[in-house]
Amino acid sequence: MAVLEAGQSGIANVPVLNLRSDFAGMDDLPAQMAEIGRRARAAARLMALASAQTKDIALRTIAERLRASRETILRENARDVAAAEAAGQSRALIDRLTLDDARLAGMADAVEKIGALADPVGRQLAAIERPNGLLIERVAVPLGVIGVIFESRPNVTADAGALCLKAGNAAILRAGSDSHRSAVAIARAMSEGLVAAGLPADAIQIVPTRDRAAVGAMLAGLDGCIDVIVPRGGRGLVERVQAEARVPVFAHLDGVCHVYVAACADLDMARSLLLNSKLRRTGICGAAETLLVDRACAGTHLVPLVTALLDAGCAVRGDEAVQAADPRVTPASEADWRTEYLDAIISARVVDGLDAAIQHIETHGSHHTDAIVTGDREEATRFLAEVDSAIVTHNASTQFADGGEFGFGAEIGIATGRMHARGPVGVEQLTTFKYRVHGSGQTRP
Amino acid sequence: MAVLEAGQSGIANVPVLNLRSDFAGMDDLPAQMAEIGRRARAAARLMALASAQTKDIALRTIAERLRASRETILRENARDVAAAEAAGQSRALIDRLTLDDARLAGMADAVEKIGALADPVGRQLAAIERPNGLLIERVAVPLGVIGVIFESRPNVTADAGALCLKAGNAAILRAGSDSHRSAVAIARAMSEGLVAAGLPADAIQIVPTRDRAAVGAMLAGLDGCIDVIVPRGGRGLVERVQAEARVPVFAHLDGVCHVYVAACADLDMARSLLLNSKLRRTGICGAAETLLVDRACAGTHLVPLVTALLDAGCAVRGDEAVQAADPRVTPASEADWRTEYLDAIISARVVDGLDAAIQHIETHGSHHTDAIVTGDREEATRFLAEVDSAIVTHNASTQFADGGEFGFGAEIGIATGRMHARGPVGVEQLTTFKYRVHGSGQTRP
Repeated sequence: MAVLEAGQSGIANVPVLNLRSDFAGMDDLPAQMAEIGRRARAAARLMALASAQTKDIALRTIAERLRASRETILRENARDVAAAEAAGQSRALIDRLTLDDARLAGMADAVEKIGALADPVGRQLAAIERPNGLLIERVAVPLGVIGVIFESRPNVTADAGALCLKAGNAAILRAGSDSHRSAVAIARAMSEGLVAAGLPADAIQIVPTRDRAAVGAMLAGLDGCIDVIVPRGGRGLVERVQAEARVPVFAHLDGVCHVYVAACADLDMARSLLLNSKLRRTGICGAAETLLVDRACAGTHLVPLVTALLDAGCAVRGDEAVQAADPRVTPASEADWRTEYLDAIISARVVDGLDAAIQHIETHGSHHTDAIVTGDREEATRFLAEVDSAIVTHNASTQFADGGEFGFGAEIGIATGRMHARGPVGVEQLTTFKYRVHGSGQTRP
Repeated sequence: MAVLEAGQSGIANVPVLNLRSDFAGMDDLPAQMAEIGRRARAAARLMALASAQTKDIALRTIAERLRASRETILRENARDVAAAEAAGQSRALIDRLTLDDARLAGMADAVEKIGALADPVGRQLAAIERPNGLLIERVAVPLGVIGVIFESRPNVTADAGALCLKAGNAAILRAGSDSHRSAVAIARAMSEGLVAAGLPADAIQIVPTRDRAAVGAMLAGLDGCIDVIVPRGGRGLVERVQAEARVPVFAHLDGVCHVYVAACADLDMARSLLLNSKLRRTGICGAAETLLVDRACAGTHLVPLVTALLDAGCAVRGDEAVQAADPRVTPASEADWRTEYLDAIISARVVDGLDAAIQHIETHGSHHTDAIVTGDREEATRFLAEVDSAIVTHNASTQFADGGEFGFGAEIGIATGRMHARGPVGVEQLTTFKYRVHGSGQTRP
């Protein structure tokens, strides 16, 4: 395999450098991108056949190489950070961009943890014995080639690359221009891990250019060489990807999550779940953005809930009933019901029971994660059935919307689309299936 | 529910007529199509909550109404056929279009059979108990709104509508202009069945216009109101749908299926599987189009296999080795390896063993259904693993590529895409899932 030989000859042969040399005569971006696609497809065919053991050796080696490459990675990251500072980027972006020893160690540990997960490939998902003696198996196989488009967090390189690898896929990673140097340095370590395990270095490729047109080429699917796109970044990126992609996308645009406190809710539990859902971390997609309180318990529950939020430093924007509960509450506008604050702000309203709560969520929500707090089992059952969101919880915080918390080990993101993957996207969702039909000469009558 | 009342007042209130009256002031197609989308989405919310029993009552009633509406349906169909004849349509199209008592009875029986299938909704697909006491269930729920675009076969109305209904979805059906009257008459019977079971008549809507722009509107997704499109028809339709759809598509463009006869193949079995795979029915997507013979057994197997095909009336286009086997073989061109004949024609070549066979299939195939005939278990295992097709068979005819033959009861089509549904698309593949999280006050640390 030319691919393997190139990788095996050392650090100069990681994909990005392969590209530089092989593409000597290819100045034009479309040709470069097409070549990346072809290599990914070829690598995917080999990856699909890799044993669990081989993939795990690769992941353990990648973790080792990430630790061993500490100096290089931090040096390249410092260059990214300096450039971002010189360009006047925001403090928040620079924080997301910056690596240190702790973050690097976390990255290596995460890769190791992904290696330790059960192999999602080859699982028998169904077995059908037919009267004619045919045995039909549905078996999990890799999805193929996964395109990951991310922004400033360089750790996505390791994280997304490792998840794709574990599920037997090839990955094409496109880093934001801010994190490009860091991503290349991380990808180099990953490439070494792949090659050490006898896997094709092209199984994890970094797009070698900062040209924004590369994103457009990926969204067009690289002539059938990308099977699914995963955007990792802010709303602007996700919006562009969802609008332009000609291939399936695993993503969520918004996480407008609700906590509905029903009449039968225990007040202490409601308060604790609400504070956790809203304030544990305000910047994650599973953070609650709207509180709905059943009118039947507003008299007893509304003031304590609103006061608890306000006292914890959360701004509350409410309808008239909520405004009446505390003078610190400001009026909510129509737009508030559709807003993902990702901040210590919550919108709140009183609703006329379960149907009105469901109606509000279906009208204004984003089908991400919604919670009911109630002691009434029947009411909970109706809420869990009728709220059409990827995740619905009963007496549990919305902040559990996370692949790790679901026991998936890790996630590449959370999807609110309805097809294939919904909710946390773990290694299992990075596979598809095929049918294997075992016969003994059967013909169809 | 306005929807139910409209339907309940009788035959004049089937969706197509609802549209006619409600759309009095809406001449423009985009507004009409948007309204169809909104109604479908509203109906889908109700359908998702329908019990298995309710859906089965609807399907049984639909079967009855189809039988009872024999006169109307055959009269409307006769008008479609007369128009098609006047327009000089082909004999084949008119055959696909024509209904008679036997076909109508078959249609009603098929709907009843779909009613008798197990309910795909509500199945617990996974249950995860977390150390913190959370119980997380992955539960099958309907996909939502399914758009079906078909051509001249009017029975697709009943067939596709019934499958969507069984899986708790709403359907928007767009009939070809040739079959429009027949489809409307069939949809009327279905509407009556829905309403009799207390389900919304809008759960199965027929697009009331023959304007081709309606297809474009559906492919754009009706502003998020269509979750998936299923094209049912010829290559031209599927190609347009795959090229233009902004929503996921369940389809296959080609069925270039292969039979690979390996060195260890029993000659009698190989002959029988080959003839069945190619000639049982030549017009279906699972029909074999290419024969590959291992060079190691060409000396003994090639002449008998090629002779059997030719003697059965199948034209053979071969490489030089195959041409040498029988003077009736004509030369195959490069294009033949990628051609789905859907006719009594086969392309054939001799290959250098398993790797060459797999390489041929991966290069020229369409990832639909491919078969190996061999007595060597290890070789079969490699073929089933390495051929990246929706269905791979060992010692079994490619013509088993069918939802009924897989035990799915019925299928809405066969998909060669990798996402969500792959292979025969039965009621199970017309569902997605959600996560239900059952807690007792857990907050995330």
